[in-house]
Amino acid sequence: MSEKAIQDYYPDALSHCYGCGRLNPDGLQLKSHWDGEEAVAVVHPRPYHIAIPGYVYGGLLASIVDCHGTGTAAAAATQAAGHEISEETILRFVTGSLHVKYLKPTPMGVPLEVRGKATEIKGRKVVVSITVKAGDEVVVTGEVVALQMPDHLFPEGGVG
Amino acid sequence: MSEKAIQDYYPDALSHCYGCGRLNPDGLQLKSHWDGEEAVAVVHPRPYHIAIPGYVYGGLLASIVDCHGTGTAAAAATQAAGHEISEETILRFVTGSLHVKYLKPTPMGVPLEVRGKATEIKGRKVVVSITVKAGDEVVVTGEVVALQMPDHLFPEGGVG
Repeated sequence: MSEKAIQDYYPDALSHCYGCGRLNPDGLQLKSHWDGEEAVAVVHPRPYHIAIPGYVYGGLLASIVDCHGTGTAAAAATQAAGHEISEETILRFVTGSLHVKYLKPTPMGVPLEVRGKATEIKGRKVVVSITVKAGDEVVVTGEVVALQMPDHLFPEGGVG
Repeated sequence: MSEKAIQDYYPDALSHCYGCGRLNPDGLQLKSHWDGEEAVAVVHPRPYHIAIPGYVYGGLLASIVDCHGTGTAAAAATQAAGHEISEETILRFVTGSLHVKYLKPTPMGVPLEVRGKATEIKGRKVVVSITVKAGDEVVVTGEVVALQMPDHLFPEGGVG
């Protein structure tokens, strides 16, 4: 398991994401760690991230699936291209679509284990399958279709 | 168009949702207004709700689709049951699944118009179709499968 999170390889100009940007002090700062096959994150929802009393907000879970999905895509596609993951090599993805199934209510006060795996890598598209567990129970599954970021979306002046 | 938002009919005990609870000071406080056929909300993303510079975070958009979806389901199902929408009659829904398509990047600095319509009401299930527009452009579409909240999830002591 890599000690450094996938998101910490993203260039500064692309590190303001509310869900996973290390440079967004108001954001969730998701950290996904790549083990060569899967990306794993542990998330501690804050007390105000509630849906109904006792349970975690579904939109937070969707946000986690979203950013863990693009992070998994970045690591898997960079590796599939034959590169070590580094600041220089990492590819960057945006979300084309997001599908989240809430299998059961997600309890508050339990760390959530999030796992992502690329099930398809084809051209600029990566499909990622995600599970979220609370303790031993899978509470959420998700699928993210991630698309390699088009050049015109890169901030002016480059991303380095 | 109703002046009072659908979410403002929810009982206090169910009004802490991070996405749409009027009693969650840290939350998004989405307000969806019912016109008898559709629910409409206008959302102003905050500057820190960014994905990459200039564009709105996809997880925020998923959160809006989520809460606007359950709100639309609540209004549509209450009306379909033959009731005026009120604090006493409104039904409450949770999200079974969420599907969001990001058709194009959503620009920051533009109010977003969110529309939801029930496409199926069957037993305890309501399917809601959602569009998000930035100016004249549809940037996101979504589908929410909403399920009427099971009694065991109601906070102890009732919801009144």
